[in-house]
Amino acid sequence: MIKAGIVGATGYTGVELLRLLIQHPEVEIAVITSRSEAGKPVAGLFPNLRGHLDLNFSQPDAVVLSSCDVVFFATPNGTAMGMTPALLDAGVKIIDLAADFRLKDPAEWEAWYGMPHACPELLDEAVYGLPEINRELIQHARLVANPGCYPTAVLLGFLPLIENKLVDSSHLVADAKSGVSGAGRKANVGALLCEASESFKAYAVPGHRHLPEIRQGLEATIGMPVGLTFVPHLVPMIRGIHATLYSVLKQNPAKELQAIYEERYVDEPFVDVLSPGSHPETRTVRGSNVCRIAVHQPQGRDTVVVLSVIDNLVKGAAGQAVHNMNLMFGLDETTAIDGLALMP
Amino acid sequence: MIKAGIVGATGYTGVELLRLLIQHPEVEIAVITSRSEAGKPVAGLFPNLRGHLDLNFSQPDAVVLSSCDVVFFATPNGTAMGMTPALLDAGVKIIDLAADFRLKDPAEWEAWYGMPHACPELLDEAVYGLPEINRELIQHARLVANPGCYPTAVLLGFLPLIENKLVDSSHLVADAKSGVSGAGRKANVGALLCEASESFKAYAVPGHRHLPEIRQGLEATIGMPVGLTFVPHLVPMIRGIHATLYSVLKQNPAKELQAIYEERYVDEPFVDVLSPGSHPETRTVRGSNVCRIAVHQPQGRDTVVVLSVIDNLVKGAAGQAVHNMNLMFGLDETTAIDGLALMP
Amino acid sequence: MIKAGIVGATGYTGVELLRLLIQHPEVEIAVITSRSEAGKPVAGLFPNLRGHLDLNFSQPDAVVLSSCDVVFFATPNGTAMGMTPALLDAGVKIIDLAADFRLKDPAEWEAWYGMPHACPELLDEAVYGLPEINRELIQHARLVANPGCYPTAVLLGFLPLIENKLVDSSHLVADAKSGVSGAGRKANVGALLCEASESFKAYAVPGHRHLPEIRQGLEATIGMPVGLTFVPHLVPMIRGIHATLYSVLKQNPAKELQAIYEERYVDEPFVDVLSPGSHPETRTVRGSNVCRIAVHQPQGRDTVVVLSVIDNLVKGAAGQAVHNMNLMFGLDETTAIDGLALMP
Amino acid sequence: MIKAGIVGATGYTGVELLRLLIQHPEVEIAVITSRSEAGKPVAGLFPNLRGHLDLNFSQPDAVVLSSCDVVFFATPNGTAMGMTPALLDAGVKIIDLAADFRLKDPAEWEAWYGMPHACPELLDEAVYGLPEINRELIQHARLVANPGCYPTAVLLGFLPLIENKLVDSSHLVADAKSGVSGAGRKANVGALLCEASESFKAYAVPGHRHLPEIRQGLEATIGMPVGLTFVPHLVPMIRGIHATLYSVLKQNPAKELQAIYEERYVDEPFVDVLSPGSHPETRTVRGSNVCRIAVHQPQGRDTVVVLSVIDNLVKGAAGQAVHNMNLMFGLDETTAIDGLALMP
Repeated sequence: MIKAGIVGATGYTGVELLRLLIQHPEVEIAVITSRSEAGKPVAGLFPNLRGHLDLNFSQPDAVVLSSCDVVFFATPNGTAMGMTPALLDAGVKIIDLAADFRLKDPAEWEAWYGMPHACPELLDEAVYGLPEINRELIQHARLVANPGCYPTAVLLGFLPLIENKLVDSSHLVADAKSGVSGAGRKANVGALLCEASESFKAYAVPGHRHLPEIRQGLEATIGMPVGLTFVPHLVPMIRGIHATLYSVLKQNPAKELQAIYEERYVDEPFVDVLSPGSHPETRTVRGSNVCRIAVHQPQGRDTVVVLSVIDNLVKGAAGQAVHNMNLMFGLDETTAIDGLALMP
Repeated sequence: MIKAGIVGATGYTGVELLRLLIQHPEVEIAVITSRSEAGKPVAGLFPNLRGHLDLNFSQPDAVVLSSCDVVFFATPNGTAMGMTPALLDAGVKIIDLAADFRLKDPAEWEAWYGMPHACPELLDEAVYGLPEINRELIQHARLVANPGCYPTAVLLGFLPLIENKLVDSSHLVADAKSGVSGAGRKANVGALLCEASESFKAYAVPGHRHLPEIRQGLEATIGMPVGLTFVPHLVPMIRGIHATLYSVLKQNPAKELQAIYEERYVDEPFVDVLSPGSHPETRTVRGSNVCRIAVHQPQGRDTVVVLSVIDNLVKGAAGQAVHNMNLMFGLDETTAIDGLALMP
Repeated sequence: MIKAGIVGATGYTGVELLRLLIQHPEVEIAVITSRSEAGKPVAGLFPNLRGHLDLNFSQPDAVVLSSCDVVFFATPNGTAMGMTPALLDAGVKIIDLAADFRLKDPAEWEAWYGMPHACPELLDEAVYGLPEINRELIQHARLVANPGCYPTAVLLGFLPLIENKLVDSSHLVADAKSGVSGAGRKANVGALLCEASESFKAYAVPGHRHLPEIRQGLEATIGMPVGLTFVPHLVPMIRGIHATLYSVLKQNPAKELQAIYEERYVDEPFVDVLSPGSHPETRTVRGSNVCRIAVHQPQGRDTVVVLSVIDNLVKGAAGQAVHNMNLMFGLDETTAIDGLALMP
Repeated sequence: MIKAGIVGATGYTGVELLRLLIQHPEVEIAVITSRSEAGKPVAGLFPNLRGHLDLNFSQPDAVVLSSCDVVFFATPNGTAMGMTPALLDAGVKIIDLAADFRLKDPAEWEAWYGMPHACPELLDEAVYGLPEINRELIQHARLVANPGCYPTAVLLGFLPLIENKLVDSSHLVADAKSGVSGAGRKANVGALLCEASESFKAYAVPGHRHLPEIRQGLEATIGMPVGLTFVPHLVPMIRGIHATLYSVLKQNPAKELQAIYEERYVDEPFVDVLSPGSHPETRTVRGSNVCRIAVHQPQGRDTVVVLSVIDNLVKGAAGQAVHNMNLMFGLDETTAIDGLALMP
């Protein structure tokens, strides 16, 4: 059994990670830490876990965490980087669901996250945990940076176009829409039901922290700078991300875009390319680790439209983290994350 | 492997039954019939099943269905009773998720459902499939009438009071609230998002078909007529039933109501009595087969308030049907229905 | 023109009051105070007011408020009572949308609101501002306690039964359901979209502050103690209250309940008794000052079921406050609050 | 008083038109026709109108309609064109809220709407009723084609860029999101609450009927062909459209984009240009006739992002129709459509 520790499981990513790990046949949840909830039963905060998890939150304790095989950080940005070096030294594998190890350039990290990086020397070693790109690196990693939710949906949607250099990469547009759970389980007026339901808005148009992360992923793939416009929007629903991606073909591709997408993902257990003319709905992936993608070329013109949907808390966070853990420990990679979406 | 057939799986109960059976280690789904969708892939109608179910809908066929070990009817009321006698003769076990075999009195059935009963001679044999009451009968049944969603929530909430004759049973009130999925996957104006969201209403106050079903269950328990006022309401959400039950104590109970409830359900895997002072939320059972209950006696007066929540599509329909199947086939009764609720 | 001041208009009641007063032909909004937002444009916080209101929030100032003809308090409980005596002395009329002057008994107020009352000597003078009961008193009042949202819906629903002593008043049940705006525009986890949408729950079953207010209103009407069980629930929607009221007839009424309700409210501009067999929907009053009521006697038994819906922010708060102002200043009482509901 | 007739007011556009016209001081609603609902009270179908409208639906009758000053068509596409010639001959002014007279080219109309046009000779005369472009033409028109909801939001957002030829018009992108009321009040499975809520999807990516309408408007403005990619999405909410518009600057504009937008719309009563850095929310225009717009140039690159929101049933349909009527009859153009948005 893999002994797992979870740091900071009081948010939506945390409870989703618990839901998946509780049902994982090879994992024993050893410790769940939370400074604010220490001493209280986890199932008191998340009643859906009643009867399935008999653990209390505890104070973070380096000794206890060091005895784990793997530690997940479901913490605010900036926490994992403080504890990671010591845990790695103790032989613990680390999966950070926050952003601490996602950007390779510490200066860029500092610019977007507003604080100096605590261990820039680990940024090179950290593997960006998108299995569809980095499967082998993940298998051998000690430290995995679990991708952001928007980057997961956007990168999987753009990859076949970018890898094959089919489109003008200087003017990519990612118009992305997320459910409100992306804002986390924090008391803030903007995420109140009365503020966020029955309404729709864009936010962070001048710049969102996932912009450099997506750009880094695209540039690493294509090996040159890309021009990306990324506009996130808030959808009045709990879960789900829908990315609508626009790019302009450099020339007519030698083969159907549909075939290019199907071939790219034919062996991927968690990417589902829909049949031509389809429109994926976020609800078809609710609670599941699947990314569903459709590719369109409206009216046969030179603009490609890709539609990519995920559950931001699963494929965009906790499910992908478990996927990474499965890979890091040599398990069947679909273990415990092959559940079906809940629909309706 | 149990060979299962499903008749009429084009609604919400059907897709939920499929989600559970696909993940059931002892079940092989042999056939899924639908007159309207015959020939089309099931996963085309329900894209959450893509990659997990490679079956087409087929025309109902007596021979094929007769070769099954169990047939589930997820059909409109009145369909199951037409096919059941022949299937029973062929040795098939039947679980009807509709109302055909729920009422013992064929005259009452006819009065509420507006058609004569096709096989009243089977009504006595049919077992009302609420495991918390009829576990042993279900284990030996050929024909199980899966309870209605409201009756499941209301009966489980009232049972400890009624079994112990603690309250005035002539003036019971069940104020019940259901998500819109209870109305089914039919095109009707009243269930449109624009009609049903951002609004709340009662319906069928003069009389709802679940009234006689609940009344029958209560009267069978207490052995005398009961007076029940049942008012269903429509909640602007997809899944979930919340029953708020009111009754008046005949005298102060000899023991705490809390203890009475806990003892009644201590061995029940799918009934969770919350701690004193709690308020169950429907979301804590979304997608799970659990009924969560809290019992209150506000201000110490003589009125008891019971709060009972279920997922109408799981414990109120498909999950309970699988529970019944597990019992009928001697399996561990929690097989494939012990999943955790999806929250948030 | 009536010079109006508003204290504390940063919540949902406040913005709704502004929406109504801006469109009131006899009112000039002179000042809107808020300690936290002082100096900022009101339309910055509430963009729906852009172009219709060119005022900044200001610090509360006794001199400025004293120059108003009327001051509305849209503040947390406990604020109005501190400023009211001085304003009354200055000749200002007061309408408090909070609870400070609703309960006649200062001991009960203290028990439920957890603080001593600052001016118990004014409780007798304060008029409970439900025009359907106290129209004449309101017309001559200096100080009006605007009713709570639940009490408005429940009292209007029960009144004809109670005034005519038709039902057993020792076991009244009010099962009430409210949209989330009733919780106010405060950052609290429970009112987040991800916590409150797609779910339904009861709350405060042991005791809610509106219980004594409703009980006081019923007892004042009938002249004897009543036994009331009041259970509020949270509905996943923004606006609207639906009260489902249960009571037992003492004997068959001499006249149809329908006629009794119609006659009681025939002259009331803001109470609409629906035709027999109806089920009012909260959306039919969204944004309007109307209370719609239906009365049922299911299966002809002795239990009466009354359905009563309001918009909690209009008839349950800001609209009723403007109604009270209209009465206090001798205007046509429907001025500026006769708008139609927004549907869908 | 203007005598108004409404043909086909049983949908969401119809009820919204009634809400506005009932409150219009210069309009008398003379007749409301509906084949399916003839003889029934209008307020029975739309209870929000109870007490404000005492009319029954009637069968369409040429004589009665001919006696009106203006007739609004709130009918499915293809109805208005059959009745319009005769009504124009009778001196009636026509405002069609459907698409019959929006496209100038009858061949294109036939291609997108799948039927031959009944009166192509009127297409030239028909004025496209977007007051911000065609105010003077509308003032003198007999026949106004009320714009589609998406075209209203998209055209108002693009106009300042296109009129000033600032962007590459061969690769415009309009990523638009609409509430479900855009699908109308028809029983269809896709618009059920259980299908459309808690989900997000694109639809009609291969081609939507509003594409040629938007393109025609843009091309008329710029005087040359444009390349437009238009992707509509369905938002789980009732009302509101949010258009996110992408285009690439041809060169740095001589003046700030913000100033260009503000100047373009400074005299427009129903277009509100937000301050720099803003993100309009659809709820800020719910129930109002306003379009709110923000313009961004993320990271100072050459891609312009415009955000444009309207209420699809008001500025995108009924409100704009009343605006057109006001212009056609020489009234103050804001009469009866200057109401504030309902928020929250």
